[in-house]
Amino acid sequence: MRQFLDLADFSREQVLDLLALARRLEREPQPTALAGRVLGLLFMNPSLRTLASFQAAMGRLGGSAFAITPGSGSWQLETQHGAIMDSGAAEHVREGLPVLGSYCDALGIRLFAEGKDLESDLSEQRFRTLAGLVDVPLINLESAVNHPCQALADWKTLDELAVPAHGKFVLSWAYHPRPLPLAVPAAVLHMAAMRGMRVTVLRPEGFALPSELMDKARRAAAAAGGAIEESCEPHAALADADVAYVKEWSSTAHYGDAAGDAAARARHADWCVNEQWFAAAHGGCRLMHCLPVRRNVAVADELLDGPRAAVLRQAYNRLPVQMAILHRLLQGTTQ
Amino acid sequence: MRQFLDLADFSREQVLDLLALARRLEREPQPTALAGRVLGLLFMNPSLRTLASFQAAMGRLGGSAFAITPGSGSWQLETQHGAIMDSGAAEHVREGLPVLGSYCDALGIRLFAEGKDLESDLSEQRFRTLAGLVDVPLINLESAVNHPCQALADWKTLDELAVPAHGKFVLSWAYHPRPLPLAVPAAVLHMAAMRGMRVTVLRPEGFALPSELMDKARRAAAAAGGAIEESCEPHAALADADVAYVKEWSSTAHYGDAAGDAAARARHADWCVNEQWFAAAHGGCRLMHCLPVRRNVAVADELLDGPRAAVLRQAYNRLPVQMAILHRLLQGTTQ
Amino acid sequence: MRQFLDLADFSREQVLDLLALARRLEREPQPTALAGRVLGLLFMNPSLRTLASFQAAMGRLGGSAFAITPGSGSWQLETQHGAIMDSGAAEHVREGLPVLGSYCDALGIRLFAEGKDLESDLSEQRFRTLAGLVDVPLINLESAVNHPCQALADWKTLDELAVPAHGKFVLSWAYHPRPLPLAVPAAVLHMAAMRGMRVTVLRPEGFALPSELMDKARRAAAAAGGAIEESCEPHAALADADVAYVKEWSSTAHYGDAAGDAAARARHADWCVNEQWFAAAHGGCRLMHCLPVRRNVAVADELLDGPRAAVLRQAYNRLPVQMAILHRLLQGTTQ
Repeated sequence: MRQFLDLADFSREQVLDLLALARRLEREPQPTALAGRVLGLLFMNPSLRTLASFQAAMGRLGGSAFAITPGSGSWQLETQHGAIMDSGAAEHVREGLPVLGSYCDALGIRLFAEGKDLESDLSEQRFRTLAGLVDVPLINLESAVNHPCQALADWKTLDELAVPAHGKFVLSWAYHPRPLPLAVPAAVLHMAAMRGMRVTVLRPEGFALPSELMDKARRAAAAAGGAIEESCEPHAALADADVAYVKEWSSTAHYGDAAGDAAARARHADWCVNEQWFAAAHGGCRLMHCLPVRRNVAVADELLDGPRAAVLRQAYNRLPVQMAILHRLLQGTTQ
Repeated sequence: MRQFLDLADFSREQVLDLLALARRLEREPQPTALAGRVLGLLFMNPSLRTLASFQAAMGRLGGSAFAITPGSGSWQLETQHGAIMDSGAAEHVREGLPVLGSYCDALGIRLFAEGKDLESDLSEQRFRTLAGLVDVPLINLESAVNHPCQALADWKTLDELAVPAHGKFVLSWAYHPRPLPLAVPAAVLHMAAMRGMRVTVLRPEGFALPSELMDKARRAAAAAGGAIEESCEPHAALADADVAYVKEWSSTAHYGDAAGDAAARARHADWCVNEQWFAAAHGGCRLMHCLPVRRNVAVADELLDGPRAAVLRQAYNRLPVQMAILHRLLQGTTQ
Repeated sequence: MRQFLDLADFSREQVLDLLALARRLEREPQPTALAGRVLGLLFMNPSLRTLASFQAAMGRLGGSAFAITPGSGSWQLETQHGAIMDSGAAEHVREGLPVLGSYCDALGIRLFAEGKDLESDLSEQRFRTLAGLVDVPLINLESAVNHPCQALADWKTLDELAVPAHGKFVLSWAYHPRPLPLAVPAAVLHMAAMRGMRVTVLRPEGFALPSELMDKARRAAAAAGGAIEESCEPHAALADADVAYVKEWSSTAHYGDAAGDAAARARHADWCVNEQWFAAAHGGCRLMHCLPVRRNVAVADELLDGPRAAVLRQAYNRLPVQMAILHRLLQGTTQ
């Protein structure tokens, strides 16, 4: 394995193999496997789970990590090609990225969407630019429209919850005061498709996921014996569901238009998911969310504190799947 | 040992045993004892000694640590139960804490007093709420009215200074421009009581330590053959003292009342401890302070730079006692 | 080796020996050499390369590091002797520094020039004050007029580029919107002199390096068979050059005078180094810069992205030379 940028870069068998390694590393600690190996972490955006779990993962395998946060202790990084750097940023990514890469055995990069132009964000051009500057193995810590570490952790969680491979997976939009990126819905949609699930994307009008992402997921679903549908009716969508994966995201009809997005989302402030949404679901239907979640805004306390919630298990699973990713990237395929 | 939250949770023998382990780890390095083990550190408030010494302690024992500072690189954490999270905080402690706990083998939490309501701070309700969300071994890195790592380091320092077990220990208030928490005076008072010392709490009117803390210390003193007194006369209090432990704290008569506290403390701006305070003490009487200390405001240069000062030794001792705590928490009682 | 504060503290042979160790550590990893050893890093100023590469260096050798940034998670540190600490800073360096030193096996300190008074900055008084408070091995991570880690990395880079020992080395001033410190030009000038090179310091009027630094370098050059010249004519200076080492620095004629410096540097905004500067240099003449560099302000894209640029190699070399420094400081001179 040379990099970990998108779950779609791997075959279903390769993913299952990674998950098997994650389970093995949970059972059998390998506290010296990565002795002397160094992971670099570049955070262009905030983080709790990713920041903590990647450091912990290296520590458990006997390696170490360093984290760099431009603008907080380190120089602001300019990303514009050809910029005349006479204002805030002291360093350009064309130097900063290869330099960080040269200090470590693998580099993780977090770079959220700009949220201005949908085509541009879908192209992952900004992330690709950074990635192209580094020649050590790269890990996507969340890019404009991807979050493969989260998706892999979620797959492991679905397995542990014994959710059937062809079970019904509802990816539901929820309200949030701000237009959040498409990274998690995109990554999770693809993961559920690859796993062979019957996926329903549930969202209000104006919040449909971009056709590029839907088409990519449909191809993965077709290959794995699953299917992708869309709905804007919570009750109907959740009927017989095995999982409701809740996530907030920006309006795609008003992408990059702050006022238009705000007006569109304000009409759906009642999309705070609560137990009533599950009226037509079966009792074992689980609630998933990648966290952080705004309680009583996106999801009600009663769900997060109740038996449906699998959110802590999802977050925990970041650790073993990332240990598996690091093990593969830094040890080769042997182990 | 399952957690380290309060020195009062341990018997005198258990404390002596921890101190013996600390001395052993100073003499005989164990650079692989905690290989693959991970300590999480959550700082809701600033730190120098705690941040540096816990990372160093894990490093010396072959393990690793990660530090999370909400609001600086990581999401702001909401602590209010039932909050409708539509403003600043992106994540609730009900998710954030168990998630961090799930990434590590032990978690340290720093959460200062709110400083609004004395009963509430004395109850440690906010710290207990966080602690109740985590199921790995917990370490108190300073809570509303406790700082057991500091207290344990101070006990070790007293032993090294050959201060008699039943010596005279003066815990003295000093001036500070702001109302600082009661955590250190509370923890140190209890430590001196458990050690069997004859303790005098020296403070101006309006700054008496809460009766709950005094009573708890009196019980510990009684069990160990010591005693607790109070005074508001520096000269008399320091007569024949073996140790003057200086600390700034808020007015308890005006707790949570900013204007009242400010007026009360302004009257005692002359409580900047200097050599004259020691006129009736013997020549070997030592000056202790947990640091950070405002020079020439709380304590005069002449003392901090003179032979009485034991403050650097106190700070250094954070390292070996915390190595002992980590060793016990993460290795069991064997070693 | 007891400390690493100035390349001038070492003989040419000692430097060559350190560089040989750096090359050996590149070829033959020693992932347990510094097991259980801890490096403390105190950053009074921002950093990317130093912050990342020192953590990586400890990790590769099996040790660990902690970083403290006063004012960001840790207390602001007062540096003034005798200060009455009644305002922002909660802790004095007279406590903070020895405490940090007591937690680690070696301590690195970054403290930029004040930029107010040239004599004061040249005296390194502020750095010396901090250094005098610590009794573990110290590493200069950039002080007022020194940056020995950068200089050592640059020497290694010159060797790798096969630049002749007595080749022509042009240290050239470049434009920057702000008056940057003299640390890198001072350290690099001395390094090139110690290496025996024929050095030309190229700078506009008003930006001559202080005579103290020039004289120190001249003595080193004389001992190593090199020479030091000055010029304010880019074309002439670069004739037959082997290396153009570009760096921005403050006006020494207007040192500490913000308006005077701004006016002086504004007249030389055309000192943005580009390919035309190399018209009289030979084809193999390399471009060096310590980074971060403001593209198209100090150096043109065409150079940084072209074949002359050695800047990434310079930055990478921080890692192996610092591994060598740490190895020597923490393991003695054996191996």
